[in-house]
Amino acid sequence: MADPKTPDDPTAGTPLTPLVQPTEVPDQAPLEPEATARVGRRRPVGGGRDAKRAARARAMVASAPFITRHHRPYEVLDEEGLELIERNSDFILKEVGIEFRGDADVLDIWREAGADVDGERVRFDGGMCRQIIQATAPREFTQHARNPERSVTIGGPNTVFVPAYGPPFVRDLDGGRRYATLEDFHNFVKLAYQSPWLHHSGGTICEPVDVPVPKRHLDMLLAHLTLTDKAFMGSVTAPERAEDSVAMAKLAYGDAFVDSQCVLTALINANSPLVFDATMLGALKVYARAGQACIVSPFILAGAMSPVMSAGTLAQLYAEAQAGMALTQLLRPGAPVVFGTFASSISMQSGAPTFGTPEPALVLYGAAQLARRLGVPFRSGGGLCGSKIPDAQAAYEAANTLNATLMAGVNYVLHAAGWLEGGLVMGYEKFVMDADQLGILETFARGINLSADGQALSAIQEVGPGGHFLGCAHTQAHFETAFYRSAIADNNSFEQWSADGEKDAAARANAVWKKMLADYQPPPLDEAINDSLREYVERRKRELPDHEV
Amino acid sequence: MADPKTPDDPTAGTPLTPLVQPTEVPDQAPLEPEATARVGRRRPVGGGRDAKRAARARAMVASAPFITRHHRPYEVLDEEGLELIERNSDFILKEVGIEFRGDADVLDIWREAGADVDGERVRFDGGMCRQIIQATAPREFTQHARNPERSVTIGGPNTVFVPAYGPPFVRDLDGGRRYATLEDFHNFVKLAYQSPWLHHSGGTICEPVDVPVPKRHLDMLLAHLTLTDKAFMGSVTAPERAEDSVAMAKLAYGDAFVDSQCVLTALINANSPLVFDATMLGALKVYARAGQACIVSPFILAGAMSPVMSAGTLAQLYAEAQAGMALTQLLRPGAPVVFGTFASSISMQSGAPTFGTPEPALVLYGAAQLARRLGVPFRSGGGLCGSKIPDAQAAYEAANTLNATLMAGVNYVLHAAGWLEGGLVMGYEKFVMDADQLGILETFARGINLSADGQALSAIQEVGPGGHFLGCAHTQAHFETAFYRSAIADNNSFEQWSADGEKDAAARANAVWKKMLADYQPPPLDEAINDSLREYVERRKRELPDHEV
Repeated sequence: MADPKTPDDPTAGTPLTPLVQPTEVPDQAPLEPEATARVGRRRPVGGGRDAKRAARARAMVASAPFITRHHRPYEVLDEEGLELIERNSDFILKEVGIEFRGDADVLDIWREAGADVDGERVRFDGGMCRQIIQATAPREFTQHARNPERSVTIGGPNTVFVPAYGPPFVRDLDGGRRYATLEDFHNFVKLAYQSPWLHHSGGTICEPVDVPVPKRHLDMLLAHLTLTDKAFMGSVTAPERAEDSVAMAKLAYGDAFVDSQCVLTALINANSPLVFDATMLGALKVYARAGQACIVSPFILAGAMSPVMSAGTLAQLYAEAQAGMALTQLLRPGAPVVFGTFASSISMQSGAPTFGTPEPALVLYGAAQLARRLGVPFRSGGGLCGSKIPDAQAAYEAANTLNATLMAGVNYVLHAAGWLEGGLVMGYEKFVMDADQLGILETFARGINLSADGQALSAIQEVGPGGHFLGCAHTQAHFETAFYRSAIADNNSFEQWSADGEKDAAARANAVWKKMLADYQPPPLDEAINDSLREYVERRKRELPDHEV
Repeated sequence: MADPKTPDDPTAGTPLTPLVQPTEVPDQAPLEPEATARVGRRRPVGGGRDAKRAARARAMVASAPFITRHHRPYEVLDEEGLELIERNSDFILKEVGIEFRGDADVLDIWREAGADVDGERVRFDGGMCRQIIQATAPREFTQHARNPERSVTIGGPNTVFVPAYGPPFVRDLDGGRRYATLEDFHNFVKLAYQSPWLHHSGGTICEPVDVPVPKRHLDMLLAHLTLTDKAFMGSVTAPERAEDSVAMAKLAYGDAFVDSQCVLTALINANSPLVFDATMLGALKVYARAGQACIVSPFILAGAMSPVMSAGTLAQLYAEAQAGMALTQLLRPGAPVVFGTFASSISMQSGAPTFGTPEPALVLYGAAQLARRLGVPFRSGGGLCGSKIPDAQAAYEAANTLNATLMAGVNYVLHAAGWLEGGLVMGYEKFVMDADQLGILETFARGINLSADGQALSAIQEVGPGGHFLGCAHTQAHFETAFYRSAIADNNSFEQWSADGEKDAAARANAVWKKMLADYQPPPLDEAINDSLREYVERRKRELPDHEV
């Protein structure tokens, strides 16, 4: 199993020390030679491309596989506040309880574990869920990518940026807003692969609505396994689709590897308030039993699905997340699991969801603290916005949540790029604009270079009062890498910008994603694996109906 | 030119406790009855407006006078890092020194204080400047507004938002980019007065270029003293303009009040690297001797005016700020002073200034920590951006710096609203868009309500699993105030937004500022004060030349 019980985010209590693996923690099982070989890459899909092009493609996406933050997270609750929220979550779990709907299997599991099962309502004595989680859930774990260089560590001081998830529509400046297709899905997998700031390929980046619902997951999985070599997410919309996800992962990584390692993350939403439905429970069971990572995420728009007040929302979502996470540990002790939350609020005037506002930011920070306190990885945040288009509203709102995401110490950042219109739309321009912001956050997270080079005293002495630093030796030695360079921002003079056509950021972003798609080269993939994946998809498409039954 | 020239937060080491004024710092003299009376407001300028309208106007701008943050600032340097930067600043002050140009008076003051004066270069033994500052400079102070309800406390856990400063141009959607006029200046004073999220009227919100340079400050001061009742900034572009600022403040607040209290803040830029010029020194002397607050601000575009590395930039700006702040204390021990910094960087490809990028954010956080360590208020941050227009670039960049501003614990936030094009342009739409963001930050800074009402357990019990919170008693009791309500964001459905004309955020902002100006009502002002201010301005305009000599 992946890396159970490495230390909590070390930056929580102690200053800026690197993570140390405690000796009582079993190391990850070593990669088996067979598995390594199968994960390995021989030559690119399609065969005709030469090694030089592959090398160029690899160079293009060279980047850190994930962020390791150098600063302690920002905190909005003190110990007393955390205790209060925890006490209230215990009260909710004991006095109100959680409903697990349409799954007798799960109710049996809870009964055996000693919970109070009353119909579909399950109540838990004080601290029961926390004790189950803390006994076996790993503090951090590795999700293995097909390319081992892109494997991500989820938890601790690490942050992984993952594309937006779920939009049925796409938008770009040329075609406007329209239903997403498989071609759009492929495009976004390619863009996430090419971006140095996305660490993960995500899951349902957009819904390919031109493919029948029961077969859609197969095309999405195939794209994540062939068009990119970053880690990806499994399907959760039905248990058999979760099983297809595990089966296809086994074709790519090898059976033994998947049995002993985490290669899939899966988004398991709670149906807030206080409900897990049969669909989510079905998927949760498949992934937890397979030792794959469930991201148990209360999905909350405060005011509708939780109280209008942040402290109440925190207690409720903590109760929901605890119950879901504990269930994964009962199904398979040590299975990787993530405390997730999607928390925003609604306009009390119109009922519309709102984003980038202060109250959900407070909830995000508070929930991150609760996750660290519990000792599990945390998912939240992203480039959320309510705007329909990639304008200033979209950017203010996305930047507000993205900044909070990094400062709060979120480990797994779903919706990090592309999100528009409250998640209904995946935006091409928004995707590359957000990705640029992720680059800013990654650079920030590296912190201040305090080496002699960073101190630059020789430069200050050389230049002296009234001089300038452009020509000094220190500047010359570092000017290429000194500052983050945005792909989107225009910092030219007004005159130059006017001469260039007075473009706004969205217009520049339009050119950026088009160039990326034009430059796309697939990563190498063993041809036998490629063939077996395609055969699996073809067979399952023959077996599955065109309409949900 | 924008910001040609711009403290320490006690919450650094201690958790969430309010600031305590050190006993060695002389308390500010109490308000004298006579002064209070003169600051008081009798009836609106113009006389004909009735009390009801004035009451409406007052209600419209009702808001907290400043932010008191409830969370500890985010930190990017540990104690070791801070010591290193401090040691390097000592090295710079001793081995390289600071040039004080064109002011023999200042050189004499340094000589008497024991510094090593060599021509215009002044060198300081280890810690000399810090000792001077720490002996007498207040950790926090109150800048009194004409309306005492709007006085702001600068320092400690407090944050004050101040409009942008210095742009020669303005931009709006109707007129595009053009030179600013006195009418524009008046408009922005009115908008800052009306915004509940701007705590201060600022200084040169834009340059009224239709007024001769030597007389311009008089019209700006008159506007700050009559069109608003928020605190404002004095002129710094020549010593006699600083003297006019103090003189006009005395007409409004009374001589005795101004002699004993801070009513003006003044932006004193260092000419980085390591130079203070005669203009800035002239203004600094006037304000410090008058007991008014100098904001001593190294103005740095890293790569040109400081090294390309953040640690080097921090050491340099700390040296510069220390020298300038120490000078204020030698001129008048106990004079309020602010550690300021404007720090961004340049594109190493084009030389253009860049904003919202990660390196200046690290410098901002680090400088805030140095100011807290030193024990003085800190100025930095704002809604900075390089974009020419209020698009997504402007918003991402502004939001990045605004978030860092609050998280770092900045006390005095110049350029909090309106800034476009690297400070060359004051934007009407950008102003109200940024102000909306300031409201978000102010709401965030209040933290999580942990009262029984905030915990909302009764609501969670009432609603139960699978219910919804819209109709429950707790929601009904709080729905009007539960969530921050944006004046700019459109959270309606796609269909509604389309029916409304598919407006972007800038188009909505255009309507917002126009409505604000249409609704503007001046605050009450004693007619005798109004007359004396106008007489002063008329007399000085007769005395002063139309062109700088």
